[in-house]
Amino acid sequence: MILTVQDVKDIAVGAAILGSGGGGDPYIGMLMAIQAVEKGKKVELMEPEIVDDNDFIVPVAMMGTPTVIIEKIPGGEEPVYVLRAIERYYNKDAKFITPIEAGGVNSMIPIVAAAYTGKPLLNGDGMGRAFPELQMVTFHLIGVKATPMILSDERGNTIVLDAIDNFWAEKIARAVTIKFGGSAYIAIYAMMGREYRRGAVKGAITLALELGRAIREAKKRGVNVFDAILDITKGFKLFKGKIVDVKRFNIGGFARGEAVIEGFDEFKNRRMTIKFQNENLIAIIDDEVIASTPDLITIVDIETAKPITTERLRYGLRVAVIGIPCDPKWRTEEGLKVVGPRYFGYDINYEPIEIRVKRLGL
Amino acid sequence: MILTVQDVKDIAVGAAILGSGGGGDPYIGMLMAIQAVEKGKKVELMEPEIVDDNDFIVPVAMMGTPTVIIEKIPGGEEPVYVLRAIERYYNKDAKFITPIEAGGVNSMIPIVAAAYTGKPLLNGDGMGRAFPELQMVTFHLIGVKATPMILSDERGNTIVLDAIDNFWAEKIARAVTIKFGGSAYIAIYAMMGREYRRGAVKGAITLALELGRAIREAKKRGVNVFDAILDITKGFKLFKGKIVDVKRFNIGGFARGEAVIEGFDEFKNRRMTIKFQNENLIAIIDDEVIASTPDLITIVDIETAKPITTERLRYGLRVAVIGIPCDPKWRTEEGLKVVGPRYFGYDINYEPIEIRVKRLGL
Repeated sequence: MILTVQDVKDIAVGAAILGSGGGGDPYIGMLMAIQAVEKGKKVELMEPEIVDDNDFIVPVAMMGTPTVIIEKIPGGEEPVYVLRAIERYYNKDAKFITPIEAGGVNSMIPIVAAAYTGKPLLNGDGMGRAFPELQMVTFHLIGVKATPMILSDERGNTIVLDAIDNFWAEKIARAVTIKFGGSAYIAIYAMMGREYRRGAVKGAITLALELGRAIREAKKRGVNVFDAILDITKGFKLFKGKIVDVKRFNIGGFARGEAVIEGFDEFKNRRMTIKFQNENLIAIIDDEVIASTPDLITIVDIETAKPITTERLRYGLRVAVIGIPCDPKWRTEEGLKVVGPRYFGYDINYEPIEIRVKRLGL
Repeated sequence: MILTVQDVKDIAVGAAILGSGGGGDPYIGMLMAIQAVEKGKKVELMEPEIVDDNDFIVPVAMMGTPTVIIEKIPGGEEPVYVLRAIERYYNKDAKFITPIEAGGVNSMIPIVAAAYTGKPLLNGDGMGRAFPELQMVTFHLIGVKATPMILSDERGNTIVLDAIDNFWAEKIARAVTIKFGGSAYIAIYAMMGREYRRGAVKGAITLALELGRAIREAKKRGVNVFDAILDITKGFKLFKGKIVDVKRFNIGGFARGEAVIEGFDEFKNRRMTIKFQNENLIAIIDDEVIASTPDLITIVDIETAKPITTERLRYGLRVAVIGIPCDPKWRTEEGLKVVGPRYFGYDINYEPIEIRVKRLGL
């Protein structure tokens, strides 16, 4: 399918829900992508199944916190620049572009690169959501190396990083991103078609698209937006209430914290605590864990159904909390080692959200 | 000339004096270089004048604080590795290797690379001493770019950095070096022969060599070691005394501080204050500046004439302070902008040490 401007807008809305409280607000990315789709070539979305074993696949993304520049939309040269740099490094043409993280702003950056280069975009990613660290991708689980990777800033500073493993890639790239002023454009996990087919979370873009479209149509038709979200994502309404407390502590450079929500309606007299670190990671009702990473926990504004990122959580917001089952690739022993609650320092065993919800009778 | 093991030892001793309190203790580097000279090919030292316009010249060095590993001398592969990496990047063979900073440990690293590759070593550097930041080299003054540069650690993590200017190169490379654990092997300021001939501080290696040799011979013959140092360097004895106070403050990631020395012998009843930031930068007698960056200020143990680096300054040490005129390239307006007292935040006009010493009648 060829992506329209409306599709881009819908993907951005859906991707924000899949961001699980993180992944960066897709708004600036959406403006870049709309501009690219209007000025560039047609962006063709293709299914992962069609890639050949030896096709060269390049994910492009942003790392860090996108700086919000209201006066000026970034031109879109940067995603193309990092793509070209990695093509030069490998001396190989990318056959396809793919998102690595379809949740949040990184649903948009690959669209920009696809529009300006005419390369098709693959309907998959490496998370099916958003995660904070470079090794937290499904390709890592099947042994694909994050590096050689390119990092570039909008000034033109450029790095080729070749790390001994994906954890070192994360450490070094993070330090560079901070020096760049907080964000970098990256080309990373460049891989072969056979790896992509095996490792990708398939359908990540169309899931965001359907989600965004369903939200838009529900609003237009005046029907319940939350039902539409739950229906598309096979998710669960975990809570409704008012945020009564937000604590933040900066541990090891991460924006950790927790929000406390006082229930209303059917959740009256109950409390939810959400623990977050860039993304929402753990949701607790009263004293019982109801959802944990890698399952998705998304907090939305109860009036607009707009997702609220962790950095925007504040006292007084009236919210609904949605839980969404993650991709099965994360529910393996290897997957949970990389993104399960214990990796993030929580002394909690992972249980699939479906099981927890059933036990609590929600 | 072909460098002998004795030459390497002498260069290390002389380079420590030229380190001006910084540049890293050459001891571990000396062990690496001796091993390389014994196991590798002959290291031929050649004069900068012989290079052709289009010869490709590669400085190799260490950045950061060399980790002292007593149990294990680094194998010497790392300096060769970064050299080979930059050759691959440029797709050009290095004709010569050169130090970029002959003061301190970086007098030794290029010897290691030269011994293992058989490439001749040039008798020049980019400082004629030690300085803390990447842009503080004479090649920067004539417009040579520090990047594309290679950074690598002993694990094998490797970066190609292409920065928009040498200040950005410093910023980004510093962050990477910290993530590497505090030190990196680098190939930097790769340049053409015509640039090298114009920019280099010539004779930097033989100056260190003569200095080390003179110190060794003076000790053997039981004559005054300080006179030998002053004679070779055209330096000045600025002070003699006991360190009575050392203050350290960490500002902006730099090891700033000051040492106070109470005079004895002909300096009885006088006080010297040395202000440092990695290197010794300002020397004040009572209230009068007697020497300032870019001229060299070296503190040596009064018994052994061994230089004391700024991190080893401590209460009770009995020391002599030596001032040495810097290379004339640093005494230009452009040079002083890069390494003069004001760059380091001191509200002091630079005056050549010869003039200051004469005025104070030392």
